[in-house]
Amino acid sequence: MKKILAFLIPTLLVSGLASAEVSAETAFVLNTFLFVFCGILVMFMALGFAMLEAGFVRKKNTSAILLKNIALYSIAGIMFYLIGYSLMYVDVSGWIGSLGGAFYNPSSDELALLDGAENVAAIAETGYSVASDWFFQMVFCATAVSIVSGACAERIKVWPFMIFAAIMTGIIYPIFGSWTWGGGWLAEMGFSDFAGSTIVHSVGGWAAVVGCLILGPRAGKYSKDGKISPIAGANMPLACLGTFILWFGWFGFNGGSQLALGSALDAVAISIVVVNTNMAACGGVVAAIILSQLMYKKIDLSISLNGAIAGLVAITAGPDLSNHFMSVIIGAIGGILCTLAIPMLDKMKIDDVVGAISAHLIAGIWGTLAVGIFGGGDLMVQIVGILAAAALVVPLSAVGFYILKATTGLRVDEETEAVGLDKAELTTVAYPEFN
Amino acid sequence: MKKILAFLIPTLLVSGLASAEVSAETAFVLNTFLFVFCGILVMFMALGFAMLEAGFVRKKNTSAILLKNIALYSIAGIMFYLIGYSLMYVDVSGWIGSLGGAFYNPSSDELALLDGAENVAAIAETGYSVASDWFFQMVFCATAVSIVSGACAERIKVWPFMIFAAIMTGIIYPIFGSWTWGGGWLAEMGFSDFAGSTIVHSVGGWAAVVGCLILGPRAGKYSKDGKISPIAGANMPLACLGTFILWFGWFGFNGGSQLALGSALDAVAISIVVVNTNMAACGGVVAAIILSQLMYKKIDLSISLNGAIAGLVAITAGPDLSNHFMSVIIGAIGGILCTLAIPMLDKMKIDDVVGAISAHLIAGIWGTLAVGIFGGGDLMVQIVGILAAAALVVPLSAVGFYILKATTGLRVDEETEAVGLDKAELTTVAYPEFN
Amino acid sequence: MKKILAFLIPTLLVSGLASAEVSAETAFVLNTFLFVFCGILVMFMALGFAMLEAGFVRKKNTSAILLKNIALYSIAGIMFYLIGYSLMYVDVSGWIGSLGGAFYNPSSDELALLDGAENVAAIAETGYSVASDWFFQMVFCATAVSIVSGACAERIKVWPFMIFAAIMTGIIYPIFGSWTWGGGWLAEMGFSDFAGSTIVHSVGGWAAVVGCLILGPRAGKYSKDGKISPIAGANMPLACLGTFILWFGWFGFNGGSQLALGSALDAVAISIVVVNTNMAACGGVVAAIILSQLMYKKIDLSISLNGAIAGLVAITAGPDLSNHFMSVIIGAIGGILCTLAIPMLDKMKIDDVVGAISAHLIAGIWGTLAVGIFGGGDLMVQIVGILAAAALVVPLSAVGFYILKATTGLRVDEETEAVGLDKAELTTVAYPEFN
Repeated sequence: MKKILAFLIPTLLVSGLASAEVSAETAFVLNTFLFVFCGILVMFMALGFAMLEAGFVRKKNTSAILLKNIALYSIAGIMFYLIGYSLMYVDVSGWIGSLGGAFYNPSSDELALLDGAENVAAIAETGYSVASDWFFQMVFCATAVSIVSGACAERIKVWPFMIFAAIMTGIIYPIFGSWTWGGGWLAEMGFSDFAGSTIVHSVGGWAAVVGCLILGPRAGKYSKDGKISPIAGANMPLACLGTFILWFGWFGFNGGSQLALGSALDAVAISIVVVNTNMAACGGVVAAIILSQLMYKKIDLSISLNGAIAGLVAITAGPDLSNHFMSVIIGAIGGILCTLAIPMLDKMKIDDVVGAISAHLIAGIWGTLAVGIFGGGDLMVQIVGILAAAALVVPLSAVGFYILKATTGLRVDEETEAVGLDKAELTTVAYPEFN
Repeated sequence: MKKILAFLIPTLLVSGLASAEVSAETAFVLNTFLFVFCGILVMFMALGFAMLEAGFVRKKNTSAILLKNIALYSIAGIMFYLIGYSLMYVDVSGWIGSLGGAFYNPSSDELALLDGAENVAAIAETGYSVASDWFFQMVFCATAVSIVSGACAERIKVWPFMIFAAIMTGIIYPIFGSWTWGGGWLAEMGFSDFAGSTIVHSVGGWAAVVGCLILGPRAGKYSKDGKISPIAGANMPLACLGTFILWFGWFGFNGGSQLALGSALDAVAISIVVVNTNMAACGGVVAAIILSQLMYKKIDLSISLNGAIAGLVAITAGPDLSNHFMSVIIGAIGGILCTLAIPMLDKMKIDDVVGAISAHLIAGIWGTLAVGIFGGGDLMVQIVGILAAAALVVPLSAVGFYILKATTGLRVDEETEAVGLDKAELTTVAYPEFN
Repeated sequence: MKKILAFLIPTLLVSGLASAEVSAETAFVLNTFLFVFCGILVMFMALGFAMLEAGFVRKKNTSAILLKNIALYSIAGIMFYLIGYSLMYVDVSGWIGSLGGAFYNPSSDELALLDGAENVAAIAETGYSVASDWFFQMVFCATAVSIVSGACAERIKVWPFMIFAAIMTGIIYPIFGSWTWGGGWLAEMGFSDFAGSTIVHSVGGWAAVVGCLILGPRAGKYSKDGKISPIAGANMPLACLGTFILWFGWFGFNGGSQLALGSALDAVAISIVVVNTNMAACGGVVAAIILSQLMYKKIDLSISLNGAIAGLVAITAGPDLSNHFMSVIIGAIGGILCTLAIPMLDKMKIDDVVGAISAHLIAGIWGTLAVGIFGGGDLMVQIVGILAAAALVVPLSAVGFYILKATTGLRVDEETEAVGLDKAELTTVAYPEFN
């Protein structure tokens, strides 16, 4: 999601061959449509996360996780409008944007066009409509919080979670975004993260780590003698549904991050990105299946699903590889790292309900490094970017979580955890007739 | 879904700058693709309704509601082809269209083009292909009946419901459509309903009210001493899945109602519509969460999901606001009205299983008024349109339901209601192993 | 998915009216985007199959079927890249393609363009980007195996199934593909199969027949005295979800098979294809509802869902009919044949868990014949194509299945079948809390 739009405005040719090129207005329409189309796909990822998480939690916490997911997407939309987009993109000084133009609406030129002004040429030069870009950015912002909701499920209180979602989408994500896609200091160093392995997935993943550490594990997960008791998710079809929806939406996530469809170059680039995205997920799934068979003597479905996600996260920083098979390798390594990370986090007593930290943070770090190893990025700069994400997100989200802990409280009490959040914090359980 | 296509055919320029504009044929391709793309999204809303309703009914009626949903979409396709489209759009006299051109197929010009004729210029002038427009209109028609199936669930017989779906999609919806989008008397008065807060959602909502009144409430819902017994839906993840799918499809519902993508103006307008659609749903969710917490001391997931739908319905009449935050407000008011309406309907003993009347009719009325208050519509004309929908749909659907009641019977008998429609009217229950 | 691209490259006009046409580069962008967009829709069909099958199997085999579905899609992606695409499309000799250009990557011209070369005109002449075409072909390949997984569910071992998926997507499907879309001998004879009633659906269906025969029926399905015991699927909402997702994805399957969006002709053709696809599904549903009511005195939801799929399969060979109502008829006949075939297969003791053979093979044969009867195809050639699919797929898949049976074993043992594949071959069951 690089904001440098080198190919947006084709030169206006005046020769007789003019008709062989994409006209400026056609490019504007195509670029705008790409943002709308891909934004809709990424919006659908909010459902993917909701279903994945509803599949991986227990019955008694299912309504709560569904509520958190639709709430966080809604809160993200409002906060990114009120504060987030400005902090991330408007007058970025290097370290943060502005709060000046807090409300981000159609440009006066666009409104004039809608009112009948003949300013199409001026509009076309802007490359794409303001709203289409805003929409595409907003759905990315929401994705980062979705990662947190899954990791911290089954014991975080609903209202404090929603407040954290507002902090994350209004402040934390936009600040790191300003350093990178907003054109700040990391962008100036040459940090390369095409669609956000670090900027979206690791940022969400770091906040998830902090949340899990501050919340502590679910009751019964780790016993004092060091035994780890797996807690099975209630509904595997939902987890599979969520994974496929994420995969589907990821074509928009990565494909749309080309930021333009108005030229043959963009069309070629998007096709390559889409194929690599798909191949990396394929690699992640196959690697996770094989490795889970080797590690556990049986195939683990949850791990296989997370393999797909890890493959997708891994390719997200650099899906513009010209050899598609490299994407299979990068995705497979993502799947392997994720599969290895899941039991390691358990050993560290970090209780991540859905495997989000393994799939998003670990694979996100790997994908960002891979751009330095196989792609056009500088490995040292990539490492700086990875560390910068941790350095920003860990303290800021810790402050957020601790303030909530000290005020509203962050974790439900033992009794609530035992009966489930659905009964304690919501009016209804998820499956009232299935008992 | 205004049928006035002011911006479809860009002027052909002959100057050297011709290449800066969208060519006529390119505009034709883009306009046609918009209908196809958005039509596909709206078709997916049929699944959204199916899942939402399958989540909100009890286990024993789940197969029946699934069957009704896939049946109604199929019946809508056939009836809108045989009768509906003609009544709505062909030779509309002011009050109704024609039955003359009953079958609506590709134009002879289009068939000639496919056969090799060099008539591209003539085709391009038509703005979009005949089939693409028909498809987009058809999926709207199906949406109106989906609203009825949810409200009347758990006690309406399957076959009579399917006959009513044929009446609704072949006659009732098209007649009101002819008054408005078909260019009839309400359109001439200046009634403004961009994508159908009234034309689709209130029309469906009025039919749902009539259906609920004639059917009566489900057994056990309202006791004689005035007590209301909530009947919980069986599967909240399905309800959440359905809501997100509706939200996803709504981008096509509202975005496609710009009816053209062939110019920068259209691209700008669609982007604005998509952002406002999203923001209104965000507002509806947040408002419903807060209000349900205040009213019930706990968050209600069902109400929060309906808040999203109510927000979407509310913005549908006028999603072309230039200040996106206004959409949050309009959606939030939609969510609040829906949340307040749900217990009010219960007090009136109108047993709406899924909250469809609150989310579609009440929010649809609000959205239509909002165009008169905040948008470019005339408030008095908007009120006339709202009343006209009631005046047409209530008697016509009452006649339809009463004829069915007198002939085939409309409501299942007590025994069937007790054991569930799945066992009585279908061969299989929905969850045979979950008992 | 005809590979003859007659309309891809519009003539470059040098007259003053040049601006009325689609420019070559715009056509390239639109053609490429069509492949990407429709490829994404077809990819989503993998989820449709996963959900359909998860709904139709019993609880105890649900995780296994989910795993098989995400695995087969991943394996298809890798195998079609390593071998499949080359065998199907590269240097096809009449009977098979080449293994020479095993890895299929962006063209050198495309890479040069991305590196800054000014070779847009040369690129535009190719019609679409290499990767976009590959992606669209790959998702078709995956679809063929999805058909097998459903039919053979509940008793085929997971690992052997995955190996068969590799054989099917790397060898069997590509060979038949080379005879047809690859330009081989059937294509030269004039075999007509627009989007693959035979090439995808019957090919998958024949492999499913062979798998079912070699595996034998599930324990308890057919008793020795000839009694057939229906085995109900565990989760009808999932089956309905899957069906709607397939329907949704089918718009990409058939619409994208026009292979171009770069002209008014293509836009018109795609619109017609989309409408006919929808109408055929509507016809299939309504026919299956009516017939199941007549046959069983009650409506059968499973049959109705399969009616939709059968209608879709039936129209896939020839969705370019100019009279849309003919599509309703063709789809309805597909739905009727599928409904009749389901009990016939049971009489033949072919235990197809989800009805895939009836919906894909039987309706696929009918749809292919229908092109010879109602469309532009030659009926004798259509029959040759149908028989050729059987003659190729039956022995090849039999060899594959028998080798697996002799080596890894193909069917789970009785004990595993009794407790379910989830417990025996996977680490987790699908619904651990629902017992």
